[in-house]
Amino acid sequence: MIEQLVKVACEAQDKETIAARQLVIGIGDDTAVWCDDARVELATVDSFIQNVHFTLAEASWKDLGWKALAASLSDIAAMGGVPKYALVSLALPSDTEAKDVTDLYQGMIELGQQFDVIIVGGDTSSSPLINISTTVLGSTKSQNLHILTRSAAEPGDKIAVTGYLGTAAAGLKMLDKHLIFDPETSACFRKAFLHPKPRIAKGQLLVEQGVKTAIDISDGLISDLSHILKASQLSARIEVGRVPIHPAVKANFGDEATELALSGGEDYELLFTASSQIVDRVSAKASLPITVIGDIVAGKIGEITLIDKEQKPYMLKKTGWNHFGPR
Amino acid sequence: MIEQLVKVACEAQDKETIAARQLVIGIGDDTAVWCDDARVELATVDSFIQNVHFTLAEASWKDLGWKALAASLSDIAAMGGVPKYALVSLALPSDTEAKDVTDLYQGMIELGQQFDVIIVGGDTSSSPLINISTTVLGSTKSQNLHILTRSAAEPGDKIAVTGYLGTAAAGLKMLDKHLIFDPETSACFRKAFLHPKPRIAKGQLLVEQGVKTAIDISDGLISDLSHILKASQLSARIEVGRVPIHPAVKANFGDEATELALSGGEDYELLFTASSQIVDRVSAKASLPITVIGDIVAGKIGEITLIDKEQKPYMLKKTGWNHFGPR
Repeated sequence: MIEQLVKVACEAQDKETIAARQLVIGIGDDTAVWCDDARVELATVDSFIQNVHFTLAEASWKDLGWKALAASLSDIAAMGGVPKYALVSLALPSDTEAKDVTDLYQGMIELGQQFDVIIVGGDTSSSPLINISTTVLGSTKSQNLHILTRSAAEPGDKIAVTGYLGTAAAGLKMLDKHLIFDPETSACFRKAFLHPKPRIAKGQLLVEQGVKTAIDISDGLISDLSHILKASQLSARIEVGRVPIHPAVKANFGDEATELALSGGEDYELLFTASSQIVDRVSAKASLPITVIGDIVAGKIGEITLIDKEQKPYMLKKTGWNHFGPR
Repeated sequence: MIEQLVKVACEAQDKETIAARQLVIGIGDDTAVWCDDARVELATVDSFIQNVHFTLAEASWKDLGWKALAASLSDIAAMGGVPKYALVSLALPSDTEAKDVTDLYQGMIELGQQFDVIIVGGDTSSSPLINISTTVLGSTKSQNLHILTRSAAEPGDKIAVTGYLGTAAAGLKMLDKHLIFDPETSACFRKAFLHPKPRIAKGQLLVEQGVKTAIDISDGLISDLSHILKASQLSARIEVGRVPIHPAVKANFGDEATELALSGGEDYELLFTASSQIVDRVSAKASLPITVIGDIVAGKIGEITLIDKEQKPYMLKKTGWNHFGPR
């Protein structure tokens, strides 16, 4: 769908105006980018819809506020930008309690304060279902810094991720299926799913160390990697054994752990590609583990091949998949 | 609702960050405003929701695109700003035809091009009901210009409006009740309701001529005036006979015409307050009629009294109202 809109928007809009405004990346990436007199400006919008992206059974109103804003902040993180302002458009059922709405705002404000993001505006409408639409505005940290895009991967790049994967999907599963774990594990999964932390500082570190290509893991590792591959017109090989599955997910989900880490989504870690040297430099400066999980290769655009330690095809136990075509 | 959120946002957010960023107007006005190194930045967001703000029986997909963007552009017009970029978050039923979505974008692009507004980004989600959330970013025309707010009205100010009122409400009524008018009238009402024109140039003219207080007529004259009165802590007297009801509305809706013009909404004309001298200056330079309809007075905050030519209370025929308390 979005591809088609990109086409319409690119063909129909006035080329001269677009050029005059120094629009760098328009519709199609998660974040819009243009050059200002003083710096590179970033803007992103995300909708967070009841019974599509969340249910009230899984999350409190405060959690919803946090998660909705986190998704947009994470888009700015994936560009290596600094988020500054948020605007919130709330569509709410008319019987929504005032306290619920202030709780939602509190959740946003709490997260916002961790990154000096101010909620500057918004509107409220009535609607049968909750829809929280969050716009975040930001910029590059300083004038001469580049931004991270999806389209700059090159054959030979290493594919790396920040942190660990799978805990958010484990949290969703735990809440959804009422699974019981020990209190520490339960708290870890719950926090990962309900209060994800956008990797703002990591995104800036990637820029500073010369990384060009990144995305945040919102849809899932495989799915988000395929966005990079399509934008960069390349393929990838992932050595499944190297994917940094969170130890608590490994310990509690057995065979399913790999799938939670590969396809689970909402971890909001950063997935990036760069030369080995650059990845090593990032690794040396990062406060989180940085793990190389595979390689960017020439090949069918968007294809991802899963391999084991011996470079043989790896079969996902549940689905039997060992490669993913373009999505 | 929004008042409560303003309170939460103001109390909970970090005062130092807000001060450091030179935030001028935050949540509560339709548009957020902050000072940048180079100029005053504006941002606004509006949601446009199926069966709340529109139905597919009244408007084509292209019309929806136009109307959704027009509402946000009008918020920028009401501040006297220049709109530049739009971001669109679309929530759509999963069976929405691709053509419908491109039509929607075409409607936005057509309107955007009239004001050099570029659609720079967006996202799409599935949702049982259509929700079009539009963020528009802009700025003041140049560095030293002020912005129009709701809170700067003063006792003794004249209350004035641009253009004519009532045609958008007449258009809605026509489409809703399948009313038949002569082709010219029908086209006029239809256009007013489906393709409203945000008064961008007029907003800038108001700023240049020294007006301080304005709002766009989106909810209806009475309702939007009450926003100014609450923000400025004042009352108003409106001489009903002076309200510039569109001639076609007068001719076709009889007694109901006054109500369509006072409460109809979606005309997207500008309502402003200023001294007589300033209103005269605006009037001399405007390409549209500028009509003085009443006065800002001290009194009960938010109260609007309707009067006739002899300064006696005016009764609205249908409701019998002659004044409106704070809303």
